[in-house]
Amino acid sequence: MPYRAPVSEYRFVFDHVVGMDQVAATELFAEATPETVEAILAEAGKLCETVIAPLNRAGDKTPARLENGVVRTSPGFAEGFRAIADGGWVGMAADPEHGGMGLPMALTTAVNEMIGSACLALQLNPLMTQGQIEALEHHASDEIKALYIPKLIAGDWCGTMNLTESGAGSDVGALRTKAERNADGTYSVTGQKIFITWGDNDFAENICHLVLARLPDGAPGTRGISLFMVPKFLPKPDGSLGARNSLGVVSLEHKLGIHGSPTAVMQYDGATGWLIGEEHKGMAAMFTMMNNARLGVGMQGVAVAEAAYQQALTYAMDRKQGKTPLGATAIVDHVDVRRMLAQMKAELFSARAIGLACAVAIDMARATGSAEWQARAALLTPIIKAYGTDSGNEVAQLGVQVHGGMGYIEETGAAQFARDARITAIYEGTNGIQAMDLVGRKLMDGGDAAYRLLQEVEDHAKKSRDVQPDLATDVWNAAEALREATEWLVAQGADDRNAGAVPYLRAFARVLGAHYHLKAALADAARLPLARVAIKRLLPEHAAALAQVRAGAAGLYDLTPEALAS
Amino acid sequence: MPYRAPVSEYRFVFDHVVGMDQVAATELFAEATPETVEAILAEAGKLCETVIAPLNRAGDKTPARLENGVVRTSPGFAEGFRAIADGGWVGMAADPEHGGMGLPMALTTAVNEMIGSACLALQLNPLMTQGQIEALEHHASDEIKALYIPKLIAGDWCGTMNLTESGAGSDVGALRTKAERNADGTYSVTGQKIFITWGDNDFAENICHLVLARLPDGAPGTRGISLFMVPKFLPKPDGSLGARNSLGVVSLEHKLGIHGSPTAVMQYDGATGWLIGEEHKGMAAMFTMMNNARLGVGMQGVAVAEAAYQQALTYAMDRKQGKTPLGATAIVDHVDVRRMLAQMKAELFSARAIGLACAVAIDMARATGSAEWQARAALLTPIIKAYGTDSGNEVAQLGVQVHGGMGYIEETGAAQFARDARITAIYEGTNGIQAMDLVGRKLMDGGDAAYRLLQEVEDHAKKSRDVQPDLATDVWNAAEALREATEWLVAQGADDRNAGAVPYLRAFARVLGAHYHLKAALADAARLPLARVAIKRLLPEHAAALAQVRAGAAGLYDLTPEALAS
Repeated sequence: MPYRAPVSEYRFVFDHVVGMDQVAATELFAEATPETVEAILAEAGKLCETVIAPLNRAGDKTPARLENGVVRTSPGFAEGFRAIADGGWVGMAADPEHGGMGLPMALTTAVNEMIGSACLALQLNPLMTQGQIEALEHHASDEIKALYIPKLIAGDWCGTMNLTESGAGSDVGALRTKAERNADGTYSVTGQKIFITWGDNDFAENICHLVLARLPDGAPGTRGISLFMVPKFLPKPDGSLGARNSLGVVSLEHKLGIHGSPTAVMQYDGATGWLIGEEHKGMAAMFTMMNNARLGVGMQGVAVAEAAYQQALTYAMDRKQGKTPLGATAIVDHVDVRRMLAQMKAELFSARAIGLACAVAIDMARATGSAEWQARAALLTPIIKAYGTDSGNEVAQLGVQVHGGMGYIEETGAAQFARDARITAIYEGTNGIQAMDLVGRKLMDGGDAAYRLLQEVEDHAKKSRDVQPDLATDVWNAAEALREATEWLVAQGADDRNAGAVPYLRAFARVLGAHYHLKAALADAARLPLARVAIKRLLPEHAAALAQVRAGAAGLYDLTPEALAS
Repeated sequence: MPYRAPVSEYRFVFDHVVGMDQVAATELFAEATPETVEAILAEAGKLCETVIAPLNRAGDKTPARLENGVVRTSPGFAEGFRAIADGGWVGMAADPEHGGMGLPMALTTAVNEMIGSACLALQLNPLMTQGQIEALEHHASDEIKALYIPKLIAGDWCGTMNLTESGAGSDVGALRTKAERNADGTYSVTGQKIFITWGDNDFAENICHLVLARLPDGAPGTRGISLFMVPKFLPKPDGSLGARNSLGVVSLEHKLGIHGSPTAVMQYDGATGWLIGEEHKGMAAMFTMMNNARLGVGMQGVAVAEAAYQQALTYAMDRKQGKTPLGATAIVDHVDVRRMLAQMKAELFSARAIGLACAVAIDMARATGSAEWQARAALLTPIIKAYGTDSGNEVAQLGVQVHGGMGYIEETGAAQFARDARITAIYEGTNGIQAMDLVGRKLMDGGDAAYRLLQEVEDHAKKSRDVQPDLATDVWNAAEALREATEWLVAQGADDRNAGAVPYLRAFARVLGAHYHLKAALADAARLPLARVAIKRLLPEHAAALAQVRAGAAGLYDLTPEALAS
């Protein structure tokens, strides 16, 4: 199924839903004119349609594999990555000082989504590298920046992030990898890391691992962790490569999906590393990379949703089944199939709008230094990560269902989307972790950032009452219910907050999705039917979710492990 | 992960939730005493734990394959099937006249669930054969019955059902397979069938295909279809095998899951067949088999849910992550993990209770001839098929999520449950088709069967108010909302009914699940925490679902194919 890049859709969401004009009005992003945005989206879209999308099935059928310690990537992935790097897409958002394009994150986010729709397994590679570039820009020394960032942007080198260990997953602070200071100012890193995305490949000259480890005098937990750049080959100051570092790939995982992305167990045996940021402050630096990656992963969910939706719609328009007096009927005309496609498209729009709104907030925070924009970005990051990926999974599963029996056959491709999407709800912090971040750290301001956003939703709903009284009232009421639930939630202890975290995030996403759909419908009457689907069919779920929020933790703890096991 | 057969759970549901005592009180099933039930469940459970469950991973890793026209089954499957047949489990519900055990469907359903938990791909084989036996019992001539049923029960022969063609999936009436009358009273069948579960194997002497085809004078659509027994080898009257029939396996599908179950494209080239039932009345006979299979497939969802739940719970109890002052914490004590496990267990209980209630209704209808029990079984069949399999998918997906990153690694086994479960929402009539059956055929009585069931729910809730006022009120209110939605629905035209079908079925399942949880909690106070989860956390979804029901078809048709594609 050929992928068609939804270029005009990004333009619409930028112009009418998430306020991209604010970004273009800043000095920092003055170059992001509508014309430039248009040109960039078109160029990236063409690359995705013609070069990247054709790699997707091959990556699934011929997974990356480990041969004598060397990772062999899937057919065509080397050329695909080269095309991405040559297009400048790795360094889109990077500082022009080191060769980046300095474009807004909103635009990068759209381009990343397109690459992810075309081939999620491959897209993970530049996504990880982008995160590493951002972490280096914020925390690395000038020497490291000058040495690494241009190579990463050019795609000569690739970046990875090494957090997880077998005993330290969601609890990063439990890690055991050690670092020791060397006399020459470098460090020696020893330990094993697991689940390392694109831990190695056969097309980059060097692989640059950002590794979390603990110095001998590092405190226990997350406060005693430092971050190190540990490259596969030790670079000389001129950027040429020296000796092989003492690190290697132990094994690759056999996964449900994203077969083209090698997920490695990495072993470091006194490998030479360079400190990034300050000693014992590695988590702060890693968080820069993780926040970037969380938006990126949320948009991976959107990416798969878009691809799965396109395929399901094409199938539903082509597949004849059942009859009307006029002849065989395409299944898109069966109302339950229409319902599924409508839900898919409505979720897709909601998730994309939330993701791009998050990216706009990141851009505005960067361009203006505004704490409010910063807080907006921080608030939306766990929402897009969890809701974007939940949507990706739901839409991909609905896509399988629309295909009927053909959806279960691997050659159809619908099942691959579902398999690929599944990891996005798990990695970069599970969606449960995201929800706890939302109700914990992101409401620690007493809910201010949340209330500000809900105020915008309510103000817009109020303004819309003349034109769409019915829909606007629904949105306003739901926002108000969410506000009340937020007030309740911030007054609770950690257990009750965490017990309500996942449904609270879901309700928040439902309200935001409805809000953006309403904006879209007001800007373009042709979008009214989809907005009705979102507001009349999906939004009512917020009430059930908020009922769960208020159910609290006690009832769950009443269900003891013994009761669970009986 | 070792599977543990939930024998005591069936006993509890039989005794306290679905009224198995009524079945044992009938003359037909007088032998199904509590002691017999206990013994049978224990014996089947032991087989599943020790013989069948160990085959599950091997079936996934080494799919059935086609070699020179012969299907080679997965390692150990021949021995596993032999153990199932030797235990008498294929013919549990079959008429003793032909060698069956004549046991209630409720008991067969529980045993089938256990076999399905242990190895879904293998369980499909006896499940299909059971359906064929029932169809033959109801519609075949005495000669055919005497010849085939004992062989099928013994597991010497296996049965398949052949409905689907590439142009005739959900629309069975569009089939093109032809049958012609031969001079000797047999028929010649010619055509291609797809998605034939266990279309062939290398351990049965004969494969008995029930094939839908159209005679030259058959009317178009479903009313002109006849059903034929088309065996792989032509049996002689003494049951020994004669010539090879003109049929064969063209290819096997490469599927998302149930790799151990060979899904075949079957070609019939003038193959010899025997008419089952009357000419042109094949759909009625096939429906006997399909209704049986729909309950069976619904319980496959429950089966996978049970297995996935057991594995996730074990992992959550073992996996340490995060700390309390007392040391490392098993993740089961993190409240969001507890929430997921609670939801899994609550869904599992609801689905199993609905499935066993359906089986009890089938038994009561058979034992008493009561039209009300018949209508109850007919009403519950699409509900258990769709909700049981939706639950299977949701629970399996939650199981993956509980495992975190490990859930995405195939060796863990959690992902296999999710892959295997996925087909259950599609085959035997997609869940959309089930929902349309519910709001169409099953409400054609004006809603009488539905109202009778809801009356029981409300009466029980009323009686429970003294003991559990809060939970009972919630159940009563939800049942009343469902009754009102039912009244609304039966007054609508087909388009609006079908547009609301899936959410209506979902709401119905939520109400029934809450009802059975309430019954369980009243019978055993230890089950109150789980009932609270079901009623306080899951039941509120019914309102959102009913809002969707009332949204009707017009809004969906407003979203034209052009709008969907734009």
